[in-house]
Amino acid sequence: MAAQNNHWKHLFAPDSVALIGASNTPGSWGYGIMRHLLASAKRRVYPVNPTASEVLGTPAYDSVVNIPGVVDLAVIVVSAPKVPQVMQQCAQKGVKTAVVVSGGFAETGEQGSKLESELVKIAREGGIRFIGPNTMGHADTSSQLCTLAWIGKITPGPVALISQSGNMGHRILLNGMSLGIGFSKFVSVGNEADLHLEDYLEYLARDEKTRVIAIYIEGLREGRRFLQLAKETTTRKPIVAIKAGGTKESARAIRSHTANLAGSDAVYAAAFRQAGVIRVDDDDELCDVVTALLYQPLPRASRVGILTIGGGLGVVAAEASEREGLEVAHLAPSTIEKLNACLPPRWSHGNPVDMAGISMAENPAVFSALWALMEDENVDAILLQAPVGFSTKRLSSVFNSEEIRAFRGKEEKNLDLLRQRVREYGKPVFMVKPAVEFASDPEVSSLFRREGIPVYSSPRRATRVLNHLVWYRRYLDAVRKNC
Amino acid sequence: MAAQNNHWKHLFAPDSVALIGASNTPGSWGYGIMRHLLASAKRRVYPVNPTASEVLGTPAYDSVVNIPGVVDLAVIVVSAPKVPQVMQQCAQKGVKTAVVVSGGFAETGEQGSKLESELVKIAREGGIRFIGPNTMGHADTSSQLCTLAWIGKITPGPVALISQSGNMGHRILLNGMSLGIGFSKFVSVGNEADLHLEDYLEYLARDEKTRVIAIYIEGLREGRRFLQLAKETTTRKPIVAIKAGGTKESARAIRSHTANLAGSDAVYAAAFRQAGVIRVDDDDELCDVVTALLYQPLPRASRVGILTIGGGLGVVAAEASEREGLEVAHLAPSTIEKLNACLPPRWSHGNPVDMAGISMAENPAVFSALWALMEDENVDAILLQAPVGFSTKRLSSVFNSEEIRAFRGKEEKNLDLLRQRVREYGKPVFMVKPAVEFASDPEVSSLFRREGIPVYSSPRRATRVLNHLVWYRRYLDAVRKNC
Repeated sequence: MAAQNNHWKHLFAPDSVALIGASNTPGSWGYGIMRHLLASAKRRVYPVNPTASEVLGTPAYDSVVNIPGVVDLAVIVVSAPKVPQVMQQCAQKGVKTAVVVSGGFAETGEQGSKLESELVKIAREGGIRFIGPNTMGHADTSSQLCTLAWIGKITPGPVALISQSGNMGHRILLNGMSLGIGFSKFVSVGNEADLHLEDYLEYLARDEKTRVIAIYIEGLREGRRFLQLAKETTTRKPIVAIKAGGTKESARAIRSHTANLAGSDAVYAAAFRQAGVIRVDDDDELCDVVTALLYQPLPRASRVGILTIGGGLGVVAAEASEREGLEVAHLAPSTIEKLNACLPPRWSHGNPVDMAGISMAENPAVFSALWALMEDENVDAILLQAPVGFSTKRLSSVFNSEEIRAFRGKEEKNLDLLRQRVREYGKPVFMVKPAVEFASDPEVSSLFRREGIPVYSSPRRATRVLNHLVWYRRYLDAVRKNC
Repeated sequence: MAAQNNHWKHLFAPDSVALIGASNTPGSWGYGIMRHLLASAKRRVYPVNPTASEVLGTPAYDSVVNIPGVVDLAVIVVSAPKVPQVMQQCAQKGVKTAVVVSGGFAETGEQGSKLESELVKIAREGGIRFIGPNTMGHADTSSQLCTLAWIGKITPGPVALISQSGNMGHRILLNGMSLGIGFSKFVSVGNEADLHLEDYLEYLARDEKTRVIAIYIEGLREGRRFLQLAKETTTRKPIVAIKAGGTKESARAIRSHTANLAGSDAVYAAAFRQAGVIRVDDDDELCDVVTALLYQPLPRASRVGILTIGGGLGVVAAEASEREGLEVAHLAPSTIEKLNACLPPRWSHGNPVDMAGISMAENPAVFSALWALMEDENVDAILLQAPVGFSTKRLSSVFNSEEIRAFRGKEEKNLDLLRQRVREYGKPVFMVKPAVEFASDPEVSSLFRREGIPVYSSPRRATRVLNHLVWYRRYLDAVRKNC
């Protein structure tokens, strides 16, 4: 049963929220959620607590039924046995939607399952759609809603995240934000007693604020519906998914975590391939792929040009490319000529294009070499492992302040040109950090972020992402051909 | 031909160094090396430059022959065609050893090879042993010697690094230092015209400051000697190696980089297995393994206990363990009883031990659960994915300053106990960051570093390391049995 449109409005952009179980005790769920709800002035927030007269300075009510105004959304954090009664009161009050954070339901065994059934029955009768139980909450950066207890500030952006694990969801949010990824919406789905993962997917597929959908899956309630939705969505919006539980013990762990059946790994793999879902192994890989999808075009094919400052780095990048199923491009003779014209004679005269050390003053040559690779019809994508994007600190060790300004001016112009050409040629460019300190400087990272060039810590990570992009492009080409 | 002992002394702990090609131009090699040589007061430094009267404030000489004192080590950065003549002058002066940084020799083709042969002949006749040519230099943190141009400060420690690529060497140094790894010595071997990788290995195997040897290999000059040396060394000191060039294009790239033959990947793999060399794929994995070898015991077998704060995290950790060839341990009934006694009733009652969320105040329970796993005879190693090690900032959001002091006191006592028990039971404990911000706090990182607990960013990285450790332990057990 899909939720109606106005339910989604009340869930993700409510005008009023009641927090049942609000608390003044630092470190508790009821305290953390209250703090994050109060962070936005966009809505009325009603704390419910039978013993406190106020919570975090806001007048409290002893029951949801005694709240004077309308309540669009109730967030429930009382202990499991009390939840059905609270849900009953919400129905009585005319609450539209709920988030049941409390755990102690189907995930704990038979008795919990009974309690969960009772809860669903009450909600259905009262016309309340709900997230959970056993959820870590949800968030919408556009409406500035956050029902999470442990993360209060989420960077806004075009990525929606649905997670069948609250902790994995938090990991992906924090990991993603540290890499500059912004999020539109987040849902920790919990036990999916009412709303299913598939409902959220259907909603987010239509959501205009969402350009990429990321999902952590342990097991699907409605596998067939998921695949149909995914198939319809991936031609417009990429879906990147972790499917856990592909081994014996992890499948067993899933049963005790969310009472889900992990299902056959091979069946999932085949279904994802047919539906155009990009499957990744862990949250590092998920964030890597999402970053590329947000800012870079899909490569036409798998031939990689490698522009590197050192021979060893080139060797390792070539090896990683081949191991990930990509090809090391054979450069056209005209490209070799162009490179001869712009690089010092010691360059490797082939791909990887090893510039064999290049000083800061020679930096413009890096861009000339980039343009040569970009123009080569044998090159579909470029790995850049060269000194581009210096911090002011590094530049200061070589140049005076006037020289730095001139250097910066030229470099920014070249980076703008790069962004333009990436689009024009439809060839993605990934930066692979030649050294850890390089581009870990916040100034440099933000420079690359502004220009939409993903930065990866190793060739292995970059080439893995590229391989996913090649696969996705081929999938889309095949779908379009059949239309 | 192995170098004599006094050559090693002159190479790694010279009393005097001449830099031929020293320069006052910021950003040049001759400037960078000069700066780093001058950073230590342990030796005399003589810049040689035919046109400058001083370099960086130190009196300069127009030729090495005109330096008044003895010269133990000459660092040469003049252009390739001038190097043989400079080497001749070094011989005339009685210089003992040299580092030929200059490129433009065998790596550039036939003419360069001739120049290199000439160089070797002059050095041999003059009794000079040398590193390079085409090297990025070398370093010894104990004698405070650094002939590198681009890295001046290397954290001292027990890891020696030999690299057949200067850039990969720099990557490993910087990556390692950012993870808290300290280095004893570093050599970028260059073209190995005189001293071979095998010579450095023989020297470092005997070096008392070195406990672990890390190597980046493209191709070996003396394969048989390498394996014999490795076999003798690995029973006392672990060797961790990247062997690049396992694919067609990377092998081709190696030929144009160091003129080495990559050799058959399968042959290398088999030889490394026989010699007890731990083979890793890239510098991330190398640093991960080295960290574990430095601070943790080798596990007796491959059965992993997983202690986690969240179900999803446990699922992903179990899956990673199995995919890396480890086993998810079956806990003894007595362990289940102990865990029942210390954990909230909602815990998963199996391995992964999912504590299903635990507050800061419940933190001591994490340690009680750790001790229970440590004592279980079915557990050989532990992955810890739980809240241990809080930053003051995080604690301040929950506790007042007196409570924080009390909390810290208890926690430090428990961490000390952990270190003690890791040794006592011979079971390694790895921390896997439950979230990125966690333990990326410098305060927390340094806490773990002090206690010798490696922190990994994902279960995949941690389990890969553990699998290497299991393999190495089995190798050593087999060797000892046969003795």
